[in-house]
Amino acid sequence: MELRLAKDLFDQISNIFRAMGASEGAAALIADVLVRAELRSIPSHGVMRVKDYYDLWKAGRLNITPKPEVVHETLTTAVVDGDNGMGMIPGVMAMELAIEKAKHAGTGWVAVRNSNHYGIAAYYSMMALEHDMIGISMTNANPLVAPTFSVSRLLGTNPLAVAIPAGEEPPFVADFASTPIARGKLAMMEKKGEDAPHGFVQDASGLPSTDPAIITRGGAIVPLGSDREHGSHKGYCLGAIIDILSAVLPGANFGPFVPPQVSYLQPRPDAPGKGLGHFFGAMRIDAFQQPEDFKRMMDLWIRTFRDATPATGQERVYIPGDIERESEERLMREGVLLNEKVMQDLQWVAGELMC
Amino acid sequence: MELRLAKDLFDQISNIFRAMGASEGAAALIADVLVRAELRSIPSHGVMRVKDYYDLWKAGRLNITPKPEVVHETLTTAVVDGDNGMGMIPGVMAMELAIEKAKHAGTGWVAVRNSNHYGIAAYYSMMALEHDMIGISMTNANPLVAPTFSVSRLLGTNPLAVAIPAGEEPPFVADFASTPIARGKLAMMEKKGEDAPHGFVQDASGLPSTDPAIITRGGAIVPLGSDREHGSHKGYCLGAIIDILSAVLPGANFGPFVPPQVSYLQPRPDAPGKGLGHFFGAMRIDAFQQPEDFKRMMDLWIRTFRDATPATGQERVYIPGDIERESEERLMREGVLLNEKVMQDLQWVAGELMC
Repeated sequence: MELRLAKDLFDQISNIFRAMGASEGAAALIADVLVRAELRSIPSHGVMRVKDYYDLWKAGRLNITPKPEVVHETLTTAVVDGDNGMGMIPGVMAMELAIEKAKHAGTGWVAVRNSNHYGIAAYYSMMALEHDMIGISMTNANPLVAPTFSVSRLLGTNPLAVAIPAGEEPPFVADFASTPIARGKLAMMEKKGEDAPHGFVQDASGLPSTDPAIITRGGAIVPLGSDREHGSHKGYCLGAIIDILSAVLPGANFGPFVPPQVSYLQPRPDAPGKGLGHFFGAMRIDAFQQPEDFKRMMDLWIRTFRDATPATGQERVYIPGDIERESEERLMREGVLLNEKVMQDLQWVAGELMC
Repeated sequence: MELRLAKDLFDQISNIFRAMGASEGAAALIADVLVRAELRSIPSHGVMRVKDYYDLWKAGRLNITPKPEVVHETLTTAVVDGDNGMGMIPGVMAMELAIEKAKHAGTGWVAVRNSNHYGIAAYYSMMALEHDMIGISMTNANPLVAPTFSVSRLLGTNPLAVAIPAGEEPPFVADFASTPIARGKLAMMEKKGEDAPHGFVQDASGLPSTDPAIITRGGAIVPLGSDREHGSHKGYCLGAIIDILSAVLPGANFGPFVPPQVSYLQPRPDAPGKGLGHFFGAMRIDAFQQPEDFKRMMDLWIRTFRDATPATGQERVYIPGDIERESEERLMREGVLLNEKVMQDLQWVAGELMC
């Protein structure tokens, strides 16, 4: 393990993407999203992704100098074509456009096609907060999840992020996958030789499995809810809604056609859309209510939930975003701990690029 | 059990609400939403609610002749005050307003306060379909659900419904609670003397329980995901987002302050808002893409998921809305089966009202 200050890590990652040919602004943006994931304790979407991005670029599957453009537009909506760039570039452009539209019309909604992995969903939803807006962000992803009653891997872990401003309290920031577990956590269990708990994965015939590597042998991750009895059809619904808004709406690839975000898996030749997709929204608070009144009520919401009685053995009840915000504040001071493999990959990529 | 034709049931329920003083249009609307729940096999939101509504009205807690009005408005948004009517009246008005706004501006978003139970969430989202729009509907509800790590009942089973038009295929209609189970299903287990499966409820100290009546003794329903390990914090996030959009945004009561929708529980004297709340959205397909292209792609989405390989022991993979639509088609012909208690309650209410 190695401790790295956020600023140093940002510089190193930024240099890597500069060396790949990204503009200074684009490289800084990509680095910011990746470091932010580390700070917020979501390392599965952080620095460990750099090598995947590099390999994809090396394989000619990622445009490092994309020129995203608006291809369809109304007063409150737009579709952005990401020009096959890293998701952060069209992602931030699309969220800024949603905010701009909300300034004029109350709300703004922008879908993105022809994009790639965009990092942590909350990065985009949180952009709305400083404008006194509610921010919404979602994306589809590599198909690893089987719908309820099926063995076919048709959905990604498709996350939804919603950021809501408060008054004196810090904002409400929910950012969650539509599955019980992320791919990265299964990989960690596999590496440690641990069994996966029941309710995370199924085998090739759809039966429950505790093998964390089962998805490399025809198995699948199950939707949030784990099984039909406990509501996995509800997790399936949520993942499907996110897939359709993110991909069918802008003309990106949905479900099983999402281009793999790793170089060792090939895109499907029959993919009907362009790249993968995202969906962003911004709603001005004062399009519904006086912001002061709303924020006072949001503070009361947050305090009511924070003051809830903890269950036996628990110390506190969390508001969505508490854990990530506290992590960010602490790691910004203390630095980010990276494991050996991630450090080696980063150095290897830097070596390849001679930066 | 008694078999009733949908038309007869509609007439009887409509007459009951007419006798309570509702206008002909309002009574028909209420009856339509309730019968639709029966047809779609969601009886927990159907005819069995009539007695609850009657008791609430008798207790002076429900305005049977509400005049909902728009209290805040922009080009794409509005807040409707439901005048303490049954949720169907402001619900349909708000969804129609969202559709109207979407016609002009691409999207429309309407939040409702000072309302009551509105029946099945999908009723409203499906109103968007005939306009080639995506429809969204959500509501908060009586607090029965404890956030992850807590024993306090702070959230309802808060459902989300999203309806998306297709081309040759029937539309995608997801309508699901943010909990593994509905209150009504627990009551049925209790009546039958059955244990509840693990992962549905917890006891007063927050420990897992299999007692279906535990929520009458300080227990709570858990969020979708069942426990922290399986992602109950994600179900908590979803329920919280629905609570905030439905209630904090329009100035309704959130979480624990939602007025009970049964007459034997009293509203809290410290309730900070007005009634309970809903949130509706409509997005024009052509605000993002050519509708023909979108519908062709939606058909492909639906066929891809319908043609997925079933798990061992399963016959087919469902598209959200399949089960409810097939039920509606069948029960429309065959009639709706009502149990003895529901029939007796209905006759008792009709007798009280002499209709």
